[in-house]
Amino acid sequence: MGDLFLRALRQEPVERLPVWIMRQAGRYLPEYRAIREKVDFLTLCRTPSLAAEVTLQPVARLGVDAAILFSDIMVPLLPAVPGMRFDPGPKLPHPVTDPDAIHPFDPLVEVGFVAEAIRLARRTLTVPLIGFAGAPATLATYLAEGGAKKSFHAFRALLHADAGRARALLERLEAITLRYLLMQVEAGAHAVQIFDSWGGELSDADFAGFAAPGLRRICARLRDTGVPVLYFARGMPRDVGATAVGVDWTVDLAAARARGPVQGNLDPAVLFGDAATVAEKTRAMAAPLARTGYVVNLGHGILPLTPVESALAFVKAAQSIRCSP
Amino acid sequence: MGDLFLRALRQEPVERLPVWIMRQAGRYLPEYRAIREKVDFLTLCRTPSLAAEVTLQPVARLGVDAAILFSDIMVPLLPAVPGMRFDPGPKLPHPVTDPDAIHPFDPLVEVGFVAEAIRLARRTLTVPLIGFAGAPATLATYLAEGGAKKSFHAFRALLHADAGRARALLERLEAITLRYLLMQVEAGAHAVQIFDSWGGELSDADFAGFAAPGLRRICARLRDTGVPVLYFARGMPRDVGATAVGVDWTVDLAAARARGPVQGNLDPAVLFGDAATVAEKTRAMAAPLARTGYVVNLGHGILPLTPVESALAFVKAAQSIRCSP
Repeated sequence: MGDLFLRALRQEPVERLPVWIMRQAGRYLPEYRAIREKVDFLTLCRTPSLAAEVTLQPVARLGVDAAILFSDIMVPLLPAVPGMRFDPGPKLPHPVTDPDAIHPFDPLVEVGFVAEAIRLARRTLTVPLIGFAGAPATLATYLAEGGAKKSFHAFRALLHADAGRARALLERLEAITLRYLLMQVEAGAHAVQIFDSWGGELSDADFAGFAAPGLRRICARLRDTGVPVLYFARGMPRDVGATAVGVDWTVDLAAARARGPVQGNLDPAVLFGDAATVAEKTRAMAAPLARTGYVVNLGHGILPLTPVESALAFVKAAQSIRCSP
Repeated sequence: MGDLFLRALRQEPVERLPVWIMRQAGRYLPEYRAIREKVDFLTLCRTPSLAAEVTLQPVARLGVDAAILFSDIMVPLLPAVPGMRFDPGPKLPHPVTDPDAIHPFDPLVEVGFVAEAIRLARRTLTVPLIGFAGAPATLATYLAEGGAKKSFHAFRALLHADAGRARALLERLEAITLRYLLMQVEAGAHAVQIFDSWGGELSDADFAGFAAPGLRRICARLRDTGVPVLYFARGMPRDVGATAVGVDWTVDLAAARARGPVQGNLDPAVLFGDAATVAEKTRAMAAPLARTGYVVNLGHGILPLTPVESALAFVKAAQSIRCSP
């Protein structure tokens, strides 16, 4: 039964809907906060035993059908951006748009702690483990802004002011993202998710011209290894050759499912309702898609102040939905 | 020729495409910054002679086909939220979710300076003047967050935690928005735009259940006065009975135009390219829609560091497009 999540992604028969929660390992869990009282965010990411422990927490607490590695999309860029810190979003000492600042690297040497965390987590996990990375355009967005800001237009501005530089930056990030994800697969990740929260902010033409080719290459190479690849973006995700797309709550789920396997998309804010309301809205969302090819999830990361009981109500409601053969 | 913008919205014959720029009066213009060196943002909004002067600046500088009142969507809430300041986004002394905090008010008494600014601007304007307000859900989003933040989920959380309170808050804001816009029309606004940047963050069900009914009532009442109503949202705007929709750059413009009159949608980041590139991308966007029912604009507000020459290149390129009869 442990591979329910993977069977759903492969469109093989499933007896019920699988469910996990984006950012399921994190601030809403008291056992996570207890660890964070002792170590800072970056130390946690860099310490395999702790990262593995936090990765396992939501599986024990919520009984989700997949675990996701505890880390941050900016972690593979730590070697390239000395002085980057997390508070809790990434803060860079200065914006980075120079492609040469992003030197090619050996992830096993530079961020091997991620592979080690995956190996440690797998020792005790009873459900599949998802590795992840940021999409090149989303990484470039944070790099060009110098971190998490209120507005995110610096990379789009670069793209129009100096298309060559923007493309070179994306190509460097593509190389890093691919190596980094391949390392995770080799370490034992059963699936990988590419987070592209900011890719949806590109116009169709800019996405097609700048972001899509690299994403297609990344997805194709990863799928060659046999692992399913999930691609998450805001708004209706474009086709980049992923196994399944993750969609946010503004997207019509049935329309997205009609295009292929899909994951999502309850508004994380729904989890501020009481447990009965959460269960009702989860069932209303998921029941019409009760067959293989669908993974229940939120439409974005779980919010830090979410009550644990709501997360549990969400998971239980999703897992109560039987699938037709 | 002065009514080109209005004819395009009414789908009457136009000889060329009209153009204006969201946030065209503001930080990217040196003549605006010169005024702001002398007065703060709120004083500027509250002083009719200055607000009118700033409203006129982009018409003189760029030759745009419409002016938009210089103000902020939070201005009609100043009487309800003592201590609100702007830096430059709104900062509230505390989050507001109590509907009773939003007392009904007489806009002529409480924010009559807005009507006076419209009257003053109209004395010298040679193009139509657009009044504006925030949509109730967008106002509620800022109120519930306590201002402009990095994440905007407090109102959506309220909506699921206490639907009755959320609905009551929206109804108070609907009443204020409607009175405020009617005051602007009576003062001489030729058209009004409703800004709903955060309405697009609601799921289809939540938008239909909470936001749409009030927006429909506002649009219907305003259209009874004879003025065109523009409705701007992020993503593909839902139908709320507006005369035209404003769309951002992630929306397929032809698909939006097929549903009715449309305004937009160049990525504001394009204006960081050189003048030739700006002109080329503007023409590529607008030329396929060279007929009535389309107003050229950016897909969101012009960015503060935009070169004035780029804004001018955008306007000139749009105005060079002749329309078929």
